[in-house]
Amino acid sequence: MSMWGGRFEGGLDETFEAFNKSLGFDQRLLADDLVGSLAWARALGEAGVLTSAEVTELEAAIEGLGVELASDPAPIAASEAEDVHSFVEGALEERVGALARKLHTGRSRNDQVATDLKLYLTRFGREFDGALRDLIEALVELAGETFDLALPGYTHLQRAQPITAGHHALAYVEMLARDAERIEDALERMDTSPLGCGALAGTAFPIDREALADDLGFTAGPTRNSLDAVSDRDHALELAFACSVIMVHLSRLAEDWIFLASSEAGMLQFGDAVSTGSSLMPQKKNPDAMELLRGKTGRVIGALQSLLVTCKGLPMAYDKDLQEDKEALFDALDTTHACLRVAAVCVRNVRYDREACRAACSRGFLDATDVADLLVAAGVAFRDAHQRVGHAVREAIETGVELRELAPERRQALFPEIEEDLVHALSIERVLGRRAAIGGTSPERVAEEVAAWKERLESW
Amino acid sequence: MSMWGGRFEGGLDETFEAFNKSLGFDQRLLADDLVGSLAWARALGEAGVLTSAEVTELEAAIEGLGVELASDPAPIAASEAEDVHSFVEGALEERVGALARKLHTGRSRNDQVATDLKLYLTRFGREFDGALRDLIEALVELAGETFDLALPGYTHLQRAQPITAGHHALAYVEMLARDAERIEDALERMDTSPLGCGALAGTAFPIDREALADDLGFTAGPTRNSLDAVSDRDHALELAFACSVIMVHLSRLAEDWIFLASSEAGMLQFGDAVSTGSSLMPQKKNPDAMELLRGKTGRVIGALQSLLVTCKGLPMAYDKDLQEDKEALFDALDTTHACLRVAAVCVRNVRYDREACRAACSRGFLDATDVADLLVAAGVAFRDAHQRVGHAVREAIETGVELRELAPERRQALFPEIEEDLVHALSIERVLGRRAAIGGTSPERVAEEVAAWKERLESW
Amino acid sequence: MSMWGGRFEGGLDETFEAFNKSLGFDQRLLADDLVGSLAWARALGEAGVLTSAEVTELEAAIEGLGVELASDPAPIAASEAEDVHSFVEGALEERVGALARKLHTGRSRNDQVATDLKLYLTRFGREFDGALRDLIEALVELAGETFDLALPGYTHLQRAQPITAGHHALAYVEMLARDAERIEDALERMDTSPLGCGALAGTAFPIDREALADDLGFTAGPTRNSLDAVSDRDHALELAFACSVIMVHLSRLAEDWIFLASSEAGMLQFGDAVSTGSSLMPQKKNPDAMELLRGKTGRVIGALQSLLVTCKGLPMAYDKDLQEDKEALFDALDTTHACLRVAAVCVRNVRYDREACRAACSRGFLDATDVADLLVAAGVAFRDAHQRVGHAVREAIETGVELRELAPERRQALFPEIEEDLVHALSIERVLGRRAAIGGTSPERVAEEVAAWKERLESW
Amino acid sequence: MSMWGGRFEGGLDETFEAFNKSLGFDQRLLADDLVGSLAWARALGEAGVLTSAEVTELEAAIEGLGVELASDPAPIAASEAEDVHSFVEGALEERVGALARKLHTGRSRNDQVATDLKLYLTRFGREFDGALRDLIEALVELAGETFDLALPGYTHLQRAQPITAGHHALAYVEMLARDAERIEDALERMDTSPLGCGALAGTAFPIDREALADDLGFTAGPTRNSLDAVSDRDHALELAFACSVIMVHLSRLAEDWIFLASSEAGMLQFGDAVSTGSSLMPQKKNPDAMELLRGKTGRVIGALQSLLVTCKGLPMAYDKDLQEDKEALFDALDTTHACLRVAAVCVRNVRYDREACRAACSRGFLDATDVADLLVAAGVAFRDAHQRVGHAVREAIETGVELRELAPERRQALFPEIEEDLVHALSIERVLGRRAAIGGTSPERVAEEVAAWKERLESW
Repeated sequence: MSMWGGRFEGGLDETFEAFNKSLGFDQRLLADDLVGSLAWARALGEAGVLTSAEVTELEAAIEGLGVELASDPAPIAASEAEDVHSFVEGALEERVGALARKLHTGRSRNDQVATDLKLYLTRFGREFDGALRDLIEALVELAGETFDLALPGYTHLQRAQPITAGHHALAYVEMLARDAERIEDALERMDTSPLGCGALAGTAFPIDREALADDLGFTAGPTRNSLDAVSDRDHALELAFACSVIMVHLSRLAEDWIFLASSEAGMLQFGDAVSTGSSLMPQKKNPDAMELLRGKTGRVIGALQSLLVTCKGLPMAYDKDLQEDKEALFDALDTTHACLRVAAVCVRNVRYDREACRAACSRGFLDATDVADLLVAAGVAFRDAHQRVGHAVREAIETGVELRELAPERRQALFPEIEEDLVHALSIERVLGRRAAIGGTSPERVAEEVAAWKERLESW
Repeated sequence: MSMWGGRFEGGLDETFEAFNKSLGFDQRLLADDLVGSLAWARALGEAGVLTSAEVTELEAAIEGLGVELASDPAPIAASEAEDVHSFVEGALEERVGALARKLHTGRSRNDQVATDLKLYLTRFGREFDGALRDLIEALVELAGETFDLALPGYTHLQRAQPITAGHHALAYVEMLARDAERIEDALERMDTSPLGCGALAGTAFPIDREALADDLGFTAGPTRNSLDAVSDRDHALELAFACSVIMVHLSRLAEDWIFLASSEAGMLQFGDAVSTGSSLMPQKKNPDAMELLRGKTGRVIGALQSLLVTCKGLPMAYDKDLQEDKEALFDALDTTHACLRVAAVCVRNVRYDREACRAACSRGFLDATDVADLLVAAGVAFRDAHQRVGHAVREAIETGVELRELAPERRQALFPEIEEDLVHALSIERVLGRRAAIGGTSPERVAEEVAAWKERLESW
Repeated sequence: MSMWGGRFEGGLDETFEAFNKSLGFDQRLLADDLVGSLAWARALGEAGVLTSAEVTELEAAIEGLGVELASDPAPIAASEAEDVHSFVEGALEERVGALARKLHTGRSRNDQVATDLKLYLTRFGREFDGALRDLIEALVELAGETFDLALPGYTHLQRAQPITAGHHALAYVEMLARDAERIEDALERMDTSPLGCGALAGTAFPIDREALADDLGFTAGPTRNSLDAVSDRDHALELAFACSVIMVHLSRLAEDWIFLASSEAGMLQFGDAVSTGSSLMPQKKNPDAMELLRGKTGRVIGALQSLLVTCKGLPMAYDKDLQEDKEALFDALDTTHACLRVAAVCVRNVRYDREACRAACSRGFLDATDVADLLVAAGVAFRDAHQRVGHAVREAIETGVELRELAPERRQALFPEIEEDLVHALSIERVLGRRAAIGGTSPERVAEEVAAWKERLESW
Repeated sequence: MSMWGGRFEGGLDETFEAFNKSLGFDQRLLADDLVGSLAWARALGEAGVLTSAEVTELEAAIEGLGVELASDPAPIAASEAEDVHSFVEGALEERVGALARKLHTGRSRNDQVATDLKLYLTRFGREFDGALRDLIEALVELAGETFDLALPGYTHLQRAQPITAGHHALAYVEMLARDAERIEDALERMDTSPLGCGALAGTAFPIDREALADDLGFTAGPTRNSLDAVSDRDHALELAFACSVIMVHLSRLAEDWIFLASSEAGMLQFGDAVSTGSSLMPQKKNPDAMELLRGKTGRVIGALQSLLVTCKGLPMAYDKDLQEDKEALFDALDTTHACLRVAAVCVRNVRYDREACRAACSRGFLDATDVADLLVAAGVAFRDAHQRVGHAVREAIETGVELRELAPERRQALFPEIEEDLVHALSIERVLGRRAAIGGTSPERVAEEVAAWKERLESW
């Protein structure tokens, strides 16, 4: 069954017909199309277009159809309908005959699909938020276990200053918390009901769109402009963008941990549960899970780009180009959702090698800034201290020692102002402990942040 | 002057040195670097690192430098400094000598530039918001003038139903209002102070970061994790994305109006103020302004993609790759800001041809849906009505008339149920008037929306 | 069956296992994996690793497997194998037992998949080229039928000068011919055999890689560097890019024809075979096919971006990220291929309205340049002629006439130098006929180009 | 001076005028605009539009202008012209008065700028190719010096098999050689002359476009279709794409070397000439040059996306959107060119630590595949050998030894089939030497490839 055709004579070209069909991917909106149709039937009843008996009959048919397809979706796969809307109208017609032919009164597929998509995204948003929350929880747990585990901190992939592994985990918690906010903002901003906007100009029937929006669960009422309502895909763009940023964050975590898990770093191990081997090299244990997270970043960013390109330069109001919104958006959401879940599995299957991490912290002059700070405490201007320590590092590299291992006379010659014992003053505990201002890496501070996050998670 | 070098022996390769310099584009952050340095000097004073006399002297020097460079920026252009931070430190040293060498205590360029950028974006955000507001105002004015001007509405670039030009203008108001929210969300989400996070691990001095954040005007306090603080570029991504969506919206307006201004449509004219001619064809008057808005959409979307690609897969914490954040972001912001301003000029230099618009509404079966609705009112199921009207359209096309012009006997044969006079029932006023539900295009409804927007603009 | 596992203890996490599997999409490479395996078995035989009896047995098994799966692919869908390579190895083991466990000697999935993909792309390239050729043929046919059909030519969507519809069609032929070259270049550049490069370092067995490349049909011999061979995805990028440009071209054709098919232009009609209707508006006949071509441009450009992002910053040699190459590339190729086919259907279902086109050419000063040229012929400097005609156009607009319809005294006052009769000199035939230099729109010239293209197509 | 205006009354809005101007960036085409104008003057002479005296006078004026601006470009910066074409026409008018007003006869800025851009790209292409060649040369030199330097080879950033550093360098040579081909292909494909195509429909004067193309140095004659000629930006897309792939390659080299230069790997050092320090941490020496190469990859990919988005959906023939082609393309070319030069400096300032590399090769089971191969040689099926070696690796990890260090009884128990002494059979020299097939990493093979590349470079 088609929802149009009266003015047409010839049939569709087969190649084009296949190209034009969207049931293959828009069937995902089935439940939402039914919910939307239910509410529309009721709204037509309120507007006097349908009798209350007709409404009741339609409600029963729609609900029955939903139950039936939930238990056996085979009719969808077998259908030749152009899209999910045609499929539903056709299936209803099989149940209630001519009455089904009244349901589309004052409605268009344009406002219908806009509504369906928002309903779907709201639904999916809850699951998505759950996956985000779960990953955050896994990271907070890890941070709790490693709040005092000393790890080299890097800038430019060069050892910089020691940090705690817990601090590192919480950096990603901060990112993901912003991500959750972005998803929430996007869902809130789109939370208006397009139904009753018709094809482009508004419906010609006396529909109470506020009541209809309520019935559908939209919290911010009906959309205020019909042209905008049927052509707006901002929410698709915004969600695909939010997914892209999530993926960028996951790609950074992947990069960090793949590095730490290399033989060279040797500070972290992935469990067998998230590693795979090589078909050729028997010794290989590869961090495939993390690599896939990083690789799929491209996929999601590509989906965002698809959507932006498709929307660029489209005239008002609806154009068929917009049919291309769904596959890209669904793929971005599905991929990111799967990545969040896999990332949580990885976080729970990772193990820092505490000894190796500590050993790594002891070589590579990670305490050089602290030497400069000791000079500052002794009255040297920081920039001069920086320069002097730089010279000392060069000398120490040549003699193959760390600053705290300099021969006593060299140490005295280079830093006469420092009275403290360097070995003591530069112990990892002291170095970490000094960074105790808000945002710093000291174990005490990290423990406080972990506690704060645990509290926040409880009321998430 | 360089801010590093103690451990280095050889000089930089010239090709690389030029490649590495950022003063050419980060000088835009000068005022912010001074503000940040002022606050940092005070914070060092509070922390007991500087004496109050030193703080006072530094404050005077920083403020003096700001005043001087505001009146004569030539020293910036002449400088060989690597970046704006080195430039400022060097310029202060010329003023207060050794004291300047104390200013960088406990600070890194990593937290410094993160702070500078946020301060800059907050500043620029105000200007940007002004430009958005001004464009919305121009569109609301246009909507007020054209709330009852009948215009063909299109889907698939085919005439669909009549709308009012005011309704069309308000569709863009809705989009831009969402854009303004997105910009605001992005600015709010980033409103935390990175200063005092050091290079990556936090500062080792007892800085009161909450007071410091206050002093700098950040409303949401200090960042909570130093690694995240120095490596976070989410705000750059988010603003570039918000700009991209704005540009997509402007590209659609451009597409609409370029079409309406074609000879074929002939319904809209741009003033000479925003049109240009051809070097070869004397008759040409081209809508260049609108075309540039559409063309520059690519530029801004490209900038967003640049930023996403650059951030993908970077290890914690700071990497030099991040220096590439600024040019792309500045270009996206500048371009979009300029486009908003040009768009407002265009809106104020556009004129609908009321007669041509009305004439266009009368041909092309824009009232076919209303005929179907009349059948519905007479008891026909909508889908049947739709089909019958479709057949009638085919017949009408063949005889070269509109539905309301059908010969009386054909009209009677085709729609016996409709008792009303079609010419009357299908007058543009009646057709428009029927779309009076919220979001609809009826003049009355559009006038209400215009009034609501005017009120909202007053308290923007 | 897995191709690795000796060093592993725990099983895979289920979430990760599903995430990691690629059989769902790499089964498309099945035929190529079999061809590659066949050649590899022979190469191992030549190298003395397998006996000739073993080679014969493997050949039979591989060929048998291919035949069987071609007639019944169900075992693939039912398989739990990780990827197509594991699937094939497992299926062979079922047939020839232990012998199958020898086939992977000296080979890695890294060089194997690189080879499979190139074999597949070569195969698909032929089909793709056929679709390109067919679309070009359809356009050349259209150009032949409309070589002298006058159509307004546009710049800035403003009427500029008359062109012929045939000339317009040939513009797209030029674009698509470049596209075909780009595809060919990409296929040629990748035509080297990666097989025998092992996982990254080359194979340790005395494989004759030149013979092997020959056997596989690669025309440019073996790849010269094993690290590059297993990590190179340039061909995926290059093909996705070539597809992107094709789509940009199709999007422009779509934009042109959607405009010409609007009520406003009314110069072109799509057949019912490639149009669809509206669920609400009975009169609508929408150019959906063309809109989908334009909309899918975003999809293909997005796929290119996915691939670029995924490849950025990957370390040598193979990383799991590269598994993400296939879905994006396949989608780009499939989408573009389908679009080429649909575009050809559209070209064959489009009809220019010769009268409407001609009428459109007569209004809008499309002959203004020719008036300037007549002044030039009479000795006026072009820039002065341009300016004077510009003034004349302004006057003509005010009086509502075309230049050739100016009152005799005004015509004489404005262009005293022109002796020719303007109506005659500015007839569409004369205007078109003047553009007879190579590349020009004159019917005669277009006919020549059509003939040249027909010849070229014969030997394509 | 403006090149249009006759039909306009009001002046341009200032905001729009500034927005519309392109002289700021298209002045880069000045030399090409002069070359094009020179050839056009001659072509007008041949066509009888200008007298030979006029041609001579124009030639002198154009050449004089070129000389003058080359020595003092100040007039360009001071000019208020809209674009470079207006600037040149105005400057010529100052020199030869009215004659300059004849030069634009039969020409449009549309074909003019298309020609200018191609001339510029051809010029720049030569420089670009030089930079590519130089980087290849630097890598070949490095490969020559390190053809036998053993280095761990990685897949998944896990140690896989030993390779030689020379082999690694040559992998990038292969990539860059493909890049050079792509650039060359793009330049060849665009090597047709648009001049004489007018605004869109061809020129109305009897220009000999073949002679004109020759005069301009285009090797493939004139473009064959005027609509395509003025709207074609394929070459911009293609060059931006080729640049993007180059950047992806450089980003991978950056990733490799940044890793090898980390303290963790410690196998490679960058000279001070391409490293920088930290403003806070005195010990830091950062691989900034490589990081910038990787970071700028985003910039170039963004430029490609800009161009694709801008071109998508543009109607024929010229639209002002296309003015946006230049800045993105120039930035992509300039950035990539600079990156190639910086990369060459880096290659010449990098030093492998031969001992550290060798030591790294000895740990991490890089010889496990060779053990499996030895089992194969002893008659074990590869898949079984793989599995057994995998088990042995697990055991060896637990006891903290490499396979070749297994206790004699364990070695005998695990691999009874292998008669050879493992320590000998698994020496790095033996392991490397085995990979001697074409494309393999054996020193002998790498030396051959180096020699072949040196030869190729001589005739580049």
